[in-house]
Amino acid sequence: MKTLIKHVSLSGKIVDVLIEGNRFKKIAEKIEENADKVINGEGKAIEPAFYNCHTHISMTILKGLGDDKELHDWLIHDIWPREEKMIPEDIYHASKFAILEMIKGGTVFCNDMYQYGEETMKAIDEMGIRGVVSKPEIDIPTPNLLEKKKKKVLDFVNYKNINENRIIKGMSAHSVYTVSEEFLKFYADVAKKNNMPLHIHACETKVEVDQCLNNHKCTPIEYLEKCGLLTDKTILAHCVHLSDKDIEIIKKHNTKIAHCPVSNFKLKSGLMAFQKLHDSGILVTLGTDGSASNNSLGMLEEMKVCALNAKTQANSSVAGNVYDIYKTATENGAKAFGIDAGVIQEGKLADFVLYDLNHYLMLPINNLISNIVYSAQNECITDVFCDGKQLMCNRKVENEEKIIENFKKICAKFK
Amino acid sequence: MKTLIKHVSLSGKIVDVLIEGNRFKKIAEKIEENADKVINGEGKAIEPAFYNCHTHISMTILKGLGDDKELHDWLIHDIWPREEKMIPEDIYHASKFAILEMIKGGTVFCNDMYQYGEETMKAIDEMGIRGVVSKPEIDIPTPNLLEKKKKKVLDFVNYKNINENRIIKGMSAHSVYTVSEEFLKFYADVAKKNNMPLHIHACETKVEVDQCLNNHKCTPIEYLEKCGLLTDKTILAHCVHLSDKDIEIIKKHNTKIAHCPVSNFKLKSGLMAFQKLHDSGILVTLGTDGSASNNSLGMLEEMKVCALNAKTQANSSVAGNVYDIYKTATENGAKAFGIDAGVIQEGKLADFVLYDLNHYLMLPINNLISNIVYSAQNECITDVFCDGKQLMCNRKVENEEKIIENFKKICAKFK
Repeated sequence: MKTLIKHVSLSGKIVDVLIEGNRFKKIAEKIEENADKVINGEGKAIEPAFYNCHTHISMTILKGLGDDKELHDWLIHDIWPREEKMIPEDIYHASKFAILEMIKGGTVFCNDMYQYGEETMKAIDEMGIRGVVSKPEIDIPTPNLLEKKKKKVLDFVNYKNINENRIIKGMSAHSVYTVSEEFLKFYADVAKKNNMPLHIHACETKVEVDQCLNNHKCTPIEYLEKCGLLTDKTILAHCVHLSDKDIEIIKKHNTKIAHCPVSNFKLKSGLMAFQKLHDSGILVTLGTDGSASNNSLGMLEEMKVCALNAKTQANSSVAGNVYDIYKTATENGAKAFGIDAGVIQEGKLADFVLYDLNHYLMLPINNLISNIVYSAQNECITDVFCDGKQLMCNRKVENEEKIIENFKKICAKFK
Repeated sequence: MKTLIKHVSLSGKIVDVLIEGNRFKKIAEKIEENADKVINGEGKAIEPAFYNCHTHISMTILKGLGDDKELHDWLIHDIWPREEKMIPEDIYHASKFAILEMIKGGTVFCNDMYQYGEETMKAIDEMGIRGVVSKPEIDIPTPNLLEKKKKKVLDFVNYKNINENRIIKGMSAHSVYTVSEEFLKFYADVAKKNNMPLHIHACETKVEVDQCLNNHKCTPIEYLEKCGLLTDKTILAHCVHLSDKDIEIIKKHNTKIAHCPVSNFKLKSGLMAFQKLHDSGILVTLGTDGSASNNSLGMLEEMKVCALNAKTQANSSVAGNVYDIYKTATENGAKAFGIDAGVIQEGKLADFVLYDLNHYLMLPINNLISNIVYSAQNECITDVFCDGKQLMCNRKVENEEKIIENFKKICAKFK
């Protein structure tokens, strides 16, 4: 399959772009090629797609339930009772709907952690995006079921029915306050043996850090290091409350961070030190968290809030500049998971979007990247490609009405 | 002119809504009426439009120029030299384009402060929204021109060529650091004599407060009170740095506040105490500020960032709840300027929008107001009405291509 995009703007220059299979084959001023599909790129800009590096996408079912509550009140009264009611079919349809939302906003990847991960993998495969999917098991405060839970982890490791071209199975050790030391070490061991990525919530709140200092006489980062969970395949979500020593440890292991500014603001978890972590050389990526604590899976908005967080946290309007933030949401996300994409370059995987340069939100084009970070909304994106395949065409995604209908049906019982 | 909207959702109930002239005539389960225009409201919700209470809309020309800079560097190198080049025609076309952006996001009012206000009033009139428009003159650091500037203020007071049904002329005393005591008192006097609203930047930064304490031995709020500028027709933009005494003074005079959270974050001005001010009984409204420091005129996003700011500032996830914030962006804005609108009720002015309830960003509808505040983007709004007249129909605004073309032409020289 060959796709040729004619007369599209790339970094301010008008070029033709040829995609062959799942990669950019050629980018040049003029390409004459007998392609299967030719797209007129006039008045559009070609840019990398987004990589959403911390999600619980199926929680979209629970969007708008229990906003503006204290965390425990919210979990106990709004979230947990509803999560218990969920069946695999719910997760499948919710995942498809959430992926529809992501595609409409230019996102082609999620690093997802939730129950019934097999269903989420099936949805990712069918929708055509990429994903790392993990299924968290927790043994605090219910240690008696640990052996059964270890078995479930191994069952997931052995689960075969996935499209390995776009989907990676991961491990998620939920957090230091929900997983025991024995179970954490088990996760580290299984992940290492199977060369799997590890996904962990870490240092999200001050309470988490204080509890860990009290229970284990060290910070969550020191504790995770001790349990063997910090590797270059580990991604830590949040990292709002880090000591300077924590930063050194994360850097030493080449561990990655998924920054979730909207969720951190909404749950008043605190302001992550974006500029400091960026300057430290740690690979910082961006994530939306679940829709129950955001309430969106949109990376355009997440970039803007990332900038607002960075400037306020550092008390400097120079902090969190648009170029660094844009890279955080695109290139860094791909890099964190070894996906050979995130930039528009010959040879790279063809994950990209087209922006309408005549859209009222994109004008004037004094600085395209600034407009994407600060001004764009989903409707500025006309087309989305992942792995060389077109997932959205003129804002239409295949079967979207059906996906929405199915989602509405399963939502009724969670109100 | 009679418009009948059939089968539309209002607070969860399906109703018919009749608009006659510029007001809601009747809202009932079933209305049989020979209307000039009948709109099918099935699958849509009718909700108030937004009132943007602090803007410099023509600054949209400068969007994306000088992000991520220190304030003075930005003003001296990016903003002022370009503002000097602006001619009335630029302001007219920029205003029309900015109003197009506002209408597309459900906003039908701006409280605008900028040069060549006559052009902005002309644009507001033609586009069909409402506005309070003021033209700031400053005499610090150029006091020698004060008499000439007072004359310009009086010329604006006497400017007659406006549609008084939707447009109000206002005074803007820019700030305590750009306007001398003599000039501030002159503004207070003219506004009082002519019963005009007053628009002032106040307590935006800590530097402003410290300078005022140093120069005048009192806070900016105390100084404004002393100069006679605090009345029930005064709106103070920002109010990030207020003392408890300041809050008492503002309340005593029934003065209003325009909260601009995105701008405050982006320029690292600080976090306004939303919940505290709300609880004090002061009327708090919402504004985007200009597009050069946001970079958007979107009230949907501004509401979300308002919530994020409120929770972080108060260190409580309960602060800044969706209902209070929604009211801030709708009802409170109308109330601040004596506009008899902001709610969907018989007898009120017909300023409203329709939301698509089957839009992927609006599902599931566990809580419609939460979805509007936290999840919606412009594309969820299908129709916009102001003063009983339809300004957007199925996301189309009259002459939008022409407005965009004209804007692109005038922007070229500001790059």
